[in-house]
Amino acid sequence: MEKIYLDYNATTPLSPEVEKSIITAMREAWGNPSSSYQPGVKARRLIDEARSNVAFMVGAKSSDIIFTSGGTEGNNWILQMAVKYFHDESRTPAQPKLGPKDGKCEVGKDLLPHFITSNVEHDSVKCVLEHFEKEKIAEVTYVPVSKKSGRVEVEDIKAAIRPTTVMITIMLANNESGVIQPVAEINEEIQRVNRQSPHRILLHTDAAQALGKIPVDVEDLCVDYLTIVGHKFYAPRIGAIYIRNPHKELRVYPMLFGGGQERNFRPGTENTPMIAGLGKAAELVHENLKEYSSHMAKVRDYLETRLAEEFGDDIVINGKFESSTRLPNTCNVSFVKEGLEGHKLLSHTERLQASVGAACHKQNKPSHILLAMGVPESLARNALRLSVGRETTKEDIDVVVSDLRKAVDSILSGSK
Amino acid sequence: MEKIYLDYNATTPLSPEVEKSIITAMREAWGNPSSSYQPGVKARRLIDEARSNVAFMVGAKSSDIIFTSGGTEGNNWILQMAVKYFHDESRTPAQPKLGPKDGKCEVGKDLLPHFITSNVEHDSVKCVLEHFEKEKIAEVTYVPVSKKSGRVEVEDIKAAIRPTTVMITIMLANNESGVIQPVAEINEEIQRVNRQSPHRILLHTDAAQALGKIPVDVEDLCVDYLTIVGHKFYAPRIGAIYIRNPHKELRVYPMLFGGGQERNFRPGTENTPMIAGLGKAAELVHENLKEYSSHMAKVRDYLETRLAEEFGDDIVINGKFESSTRLPNTCNVSFVKEGLEGHKLLSHTERLQASVGAACHKQNKPSHILLAMGVPESLARNALRLSVGRETTKEDIDVVVSDLRKAVDSILSGSK
Repeated sequence: MEKIYLDYNATTPLSPEVEKSIITAMREAWGNPSSSYQPGVKARRLIDEARSNVAFMVGAKSSDIIFTSGGTEGNNWILQMAVKYFHDESRTPAQPKLGPKDGKCEVGKDLLPHFITSNVEHDSVKCVLEHFEKEKIAEVTYVPVSKKSGRVEVEDIKAAIRPTTVMITIMLANNESGVIQPVAEINEEIQRVNRQSPHRILLHTDAAQALGKIPVDVEDLCVDYLTIVGHKFYAPRIGAIYIRNPHKELRVYPMLFGGGQERNFRPGTENTPMIAGLGKAAELVHENLKEYSSHMAKVRDYLETRLAEEFGDDIVINGKFESSTRLPNTCNVSFVKEGLEGHKLLSHTERLQASVGAACHKQNKPSHILLAMGVPESLARNALRLSVGRETTKEDIDVVVSDLRKAVDSILSGSK
Repeated sequence: MEKIYLDYNATTPLSPEVEKSIITAMREAWGNPSSSYQPGVKARRLIDEARSNVAFMVGAKSSDIIFTSGGTEGNNWILQMAVKYFHDESRTPAQPKLGPKDGKCEVGKDLLPHFITSNVEHDSVKCVLEHFEKEKIAEVTYVPVSKKSGRVEVEDIKAAIRPTTVMITIMLANNESGVIQPVAEINEEIQRVNRQSPHRILLHTDAAQALGKIPVDVEDLCVDYLTIVGHKFYAPRIGAIYIRNPHKELRVYPMLFGGGQERNFRPGTENTPMIAGLGKAAELVHENLKEYSSHMAKVRDYLETRLAEEFGDDIVINGKFESSTRLPNTCNVSFVKEGLEGHKLLSHTERLQASVGAACHKQNKPSHILLAMGVPESLARNALRLSVGRETTKEDIDVVVSDLRKAVDSILSGSK
């Protein structure tokens, strides 16, 4: 029986055009992009073209884009850069100064850089910051999202600012609830703060879940850094980061050292076919975003209507607030009755392929994101994340709803 | 006119079988490998299979292999791990201790970890160690290769050992000269040293240029860490590292933090198609190494014979020593006469695609590797690196030699 995939927030297939670009590049541009003869030159040209398409997708200049192996590398790198920026700016001596001979030392204030983030970030931000805290590399404030909107609120971010705050990193859209965070509003406000301070607070957003679903523009968002992840918008498993005017406005601190690739910012022989695929996917998003987005919204809304018709008060949609908006493709739904845990439901469906939350997490624990949004534990355990894609149809939704009905009945009747 | 590619040390095309694995994985195993439904499960299976093939290629266990984005990441990570290992082992306090209240402090000995390497390493090792020196993260001894063998000699390595030596990192085969370094001999000797010392010296080799050309076995080499780079053996642009019994014998210090992929050692959604391709290429190497190797040796030797016939005393083969062996595919040749700089020669050839050295380096500077081997600057400037592949034929070689003859004549006659 054909399965119906509703887990596009976990990963997407490659779009046919992207697959074609990858295959063409594998065959025709396999040379080392640093080589000066034909297969190398062709590879270099494909990489330049991809860079320009990725830049275009997010309203940036080509020179602001650096390719990475994926979102995890991008987020780790950007957060590490902020730490180096802080010490370079030398707000305070990073280490206690040793007296020259007598073995005495001044106790420097030895301040640590301070990060502000939300309590619903992806692990590739959250775990890095937790590591910084554990290793005493940085201090972190995790601003809770409002239980009324699922968003971090501008005033709460502002209230968390300290003299040592070096970066504010807030995801653009949440991967489980779909709630879009007020990144532009926060950043506009922080830019005002920056204008009155000798120390610039750097602004980062992880746009992994937003790209290909809603408009993403680095100028509108007022970000200094933005993380791009291919495999959420029908591109392969690589990524890129945006940095505002690298080395002119913002110094780039490489995380890796080696050959001179990516202007010495990110060495390593370039993964030409994957980069070409990322570029093609970015081009498609730039050209068709409205269409993709409205299709997904239509199908997702149909899904929620059908769920409401079928299950009525037996379900709750998580993350649907008056005062915030969601990604057009995401529906996070909890089944109210006891015993209908998300993972159990999924094991009883015959057609539906979906998840209870981020793929890289244990599937039998209630989502910390839903808990942070104020969803009670009993409902968080009973949640499913259903995320639709460019190909999902209303017919698929009908099948899924009836599949869920059967699964629910089967569990509640105690049979399988 | 068809070009003849003799730059297989810069990069290789994908073998047809590898290309097929990649395409199949793109189409059939696009799910998130952390997902529990079919497209995810299939991806997970392909990744496991690839891991086992990569392990098999280097005589390791599957659990010793961790996938990375490439050799640069692998080398950076392994060297960083050694620094963390040193501080964890706490031979000495890493930081001066602050007295609790009075602001005085003991001046700790504050020793830095010490690395031993050669002076002919690839930039992805060399630049990392230079960065460590610059940032006072570590001290480094660059043991020069012998001018009589192009190899670092075991006694020189031993003589460089200090109480703080934490790692010896020597490439398995040089990318420009092709000279195979005595990694097994060095490591056997160091294991003897280790047995008499409370502090273990870690042993790393970057096997980038050796894989697919000569046998590589982690037990024979007595290494603790080994770097694997796909695109030098007809695999895509990703890599892997070998670690001896990770977390049992050697603790793994992640460089990146995020989701739980690769047993938490290396987070980030896995690049399934590229990993599948790497696995297939490793399988091919494991099955056909002898054949690949003897074909390359035959063609390379024919190249050197033909060059000698054609150019006689007007050329010198670099890196061909009685007391060391070379990769079977590499011929580094210098043209003796003035004015025949490598990059100029390449710009005058019509059919040959080759390089003067590592692709990621400036092509108009004499190779620091040749200089380190004692090649005089005038000859180092006039060097070409010719590296043959699985497909190179004797007919190709005839064409290349006559192409080079024309280029030489054209330059010397002052035309073109």
